[in-house]
Amino acid sequence: MRQKLDAAIAAVRPVNQALATQAQAHLDDLTKPRGSLGRLEEAALRLFLIQERAPLSVDPAMIHTVAGDHGVAAEGVSLFPSEVTRQMVLNFTRGGAAINVLAKTAGVGLKVVDAGVAGGPFEAAPNLVNGKVAPGTANMAQGPAMSQAQCLAALELGLDLAREAADQGMRAVGTGDMGIANTTPSTALYCAFLGLAPKDVTGPGTGLDAQGVSRKATIIEQALKVNQAAIDSGDPLTILAALGGYEIACLAGLIIGAASRRMAVAVDGFISTAAYLCAIRLCPAAADYCFLSHLSAETGHAAVLKAMDARPLLHLDMRLGEGTGGALALFILRAAANIYNDMATFSSAGVTDSE
Amino acid sequence: MRQKLDAAIAAVRPVNQALATQAQAHLDDLTKPRGSLGRLEEAALRLFLIQERAPLSVDPAMIHTVAGDHGVAAEGVSLFPSEVTRQMVLNFTRGGAAINVLAKTAGVGLKVVDAGVAGGPFEAAPNLVNGKVAPGTANMAQGPAMSQAQCLAALELGLDLAREAADQGMRAVGTGDMGIANTTPSTALYCAFLGLAPKDVTGPGTGLDAQGVSRKATIIEQALKVNQAAIDSGDPLTILAALGGYEIACLAGLIIGAASRRMAVAVDGFISTAAYLCAIRLCPAAADYCFLSHLSAETGHAAVLKAMDARPLLHLDMRLGEGTGGALALFILRAAANIYNDMATFSSAGVTDSE
Repeated sequence: MRQKLDAAIAAVRPVNQALATQAQAHLDDLTKPRGSLGRLEEAALRLFLIQERAPLSVDPAMIHTVAGDHGVAAEGVSLFPSEVTRQMVLNFTRGGAAINVLAKTAGVGLKVVDAGVAGGPFEAAPNLVNGKVAPGTANMAQGPAMSQAQCLAALELGLDLAREAADQGMRAVGTGDMGIANTTPSTALYCAFLGLAPKDVTGPGTGLDAQGVSRKATIIEQALKVNQAAIDSGDPLTILAALGGYEIACLAGLIIGAASRRMAVAVDGFISTAAYLCAIRLCPAAADYCFLSHLSAETGHAAVLKAMDARPLLHLDMRLGEGTGGALALFILRAAANIYNDMATFSSAGVTDSE
Repeated sequence: MRQKLDAAIAAVRPVNQALATQAQAHLDDLTKPRGSLGRLEEAALRLFLIQERAPLSVDPAMIHTVAGDHGVAAEGVSLFPSEVTRQMVLNFTRGGAAINVLAKTAGVGLKVVDAGVAGGPFEAAPNLVNGKVAPGTANMAQGPAMSQAQCLAALELGLDLAREAADQGMRAVGTGDMGIANTTPSTALYCAFLGLAPKDVTGPGTGLDAQGVSRKATIIEQALKVNQAAIDSGDPLTILAALGGYEIACLAGLIIGAASRRMAVAVDGFISTAAYLCAIRLCPAAADYCFLSHLSAETGHAAVLKAMDARPLLHLDMRLGEGTGGALALFILRAAANIYNDMATFSSAGVTDSE
């Protein structure tokens, strides 16, 4: 049953760290003090390891904003009603959302994916993929959110999206999410995989007050308890099925698929990092292809990134999701690639190097 | 003698904070949870206060990379010889430097300015302004770096650049610097204006080792002592003349001039923040027009920003100068402007707002 996923996982090769010396020597020969472009140089080096030759490029790039609904929304864990997931998908297809504006600003494409939105299929739209696995997850506070088959279907949807992006010549993808209540499953996944306590990482999401956050943490505790056997299995797919969501599983698949085709991945914020965590538990080598875009203002993201020993590129107090941080990060990655490709060397520019 | 500067200062009007309510209401009506775009929303609001009507824009924008040499370089405070300032100006005019690459990536223009490079004038080049006030400053460890007349000439050069940019339709400018040894005068200015101790804010610049940093701090202490009377005067122009440099004074003038023409200013890193500090001491209202682009990796910048109660937009461990952080920040400001201009509202998109 897992053949397709296992084939994709097997196709992800860790990058060849031996190439780092060559890339670093090139960066050090550019007309600037060594290391003075900081994270841009680090990103350029990592891009070189992914792409193995200059010119480096993250263009064209496609952001995939994947939507799903969550049975746990019935527990009142979000300020917004579930119907907003569907409304926002329509907003994405019509160009009015933040991700539309930021993808356009960053010069990257946007694909909107229904992986599990409540209700029927959407009317066709040019940038919309109708990939609905089911009309929302079950309530994870009462049992597993998805069956393993459903979870696998969402992962495979992500693999298909990655294959399509690679076949269309994409050099990078960005991850994005839409799903009312989806900070709740994301937090549960962090707790399950990283051993964090719900009270330490549960945050307000779209704007809960302190009482709401406390209630949400209790629901997450309950979900962890109800799904304790799944967690104890230690199997990433089982844990993802129990506590995740269709958009999260789809994004995990997208990340693995992108890595298998040697595309760079700009991982967005709180929800996408949960998908990334699932992806690298399923396929550790996928981490080599991923850039964590930004530190979300959502409570818990900082602790999660610390526990994962991961450093995000941007710190802009954003907490919207949709791929908005990924869009901005793709611009930073483009800047890093161009630095590597286009700067003069000390000798070519006739500039004296330091002593 | 200060008429031109005083006229520019008088022309800088504080923004009208009463307009913030209107701008905030608009931001809150866009299809996203309130405040969820964090610093982008904050930047958009500040841009609205500067521009007073939508559509907001920072385009076209022009980065001004201003170069000058420093007599204090003779004290061995930099790893690179002074001749590199001239070599890098040529590199800027030929397109090979980091700022060329990042300005192009960000879609903004670049003007290179000789405000005080050692040696004779440069050959004409399309994007070069020959504005040399003098061929480098005097050694501030032995006396004032500039006379008041020289300092004023450099400030006026910056005012002229701002006027020209505004006349050419620029909506924003970025500040950038090139000047071997210029972290030394910048650090001295921070100490003089903010009461910080050289040992606490002196850093490696282009890459000094610990012994070199210690020696540099001693030179800065000596410069502060030698110029104690200037510091005690409390007069920003006198302090800038004693401890600054031609590129720093020119950038301070550019900032004041830009504010007087209601252009947004992306202030680059360690050197540019020193120019910004001089500008707002001469003209406090200029602060309303400025965005601090990034936290430099140069030791001391974090302490300086804390002392100034200022929050930079980016944290990318960069420490190159040239305007590189400003170029990236102008992209972030463009994103903020587009969010304000182009997102759908809850009512127009048929999206249910939170309860």
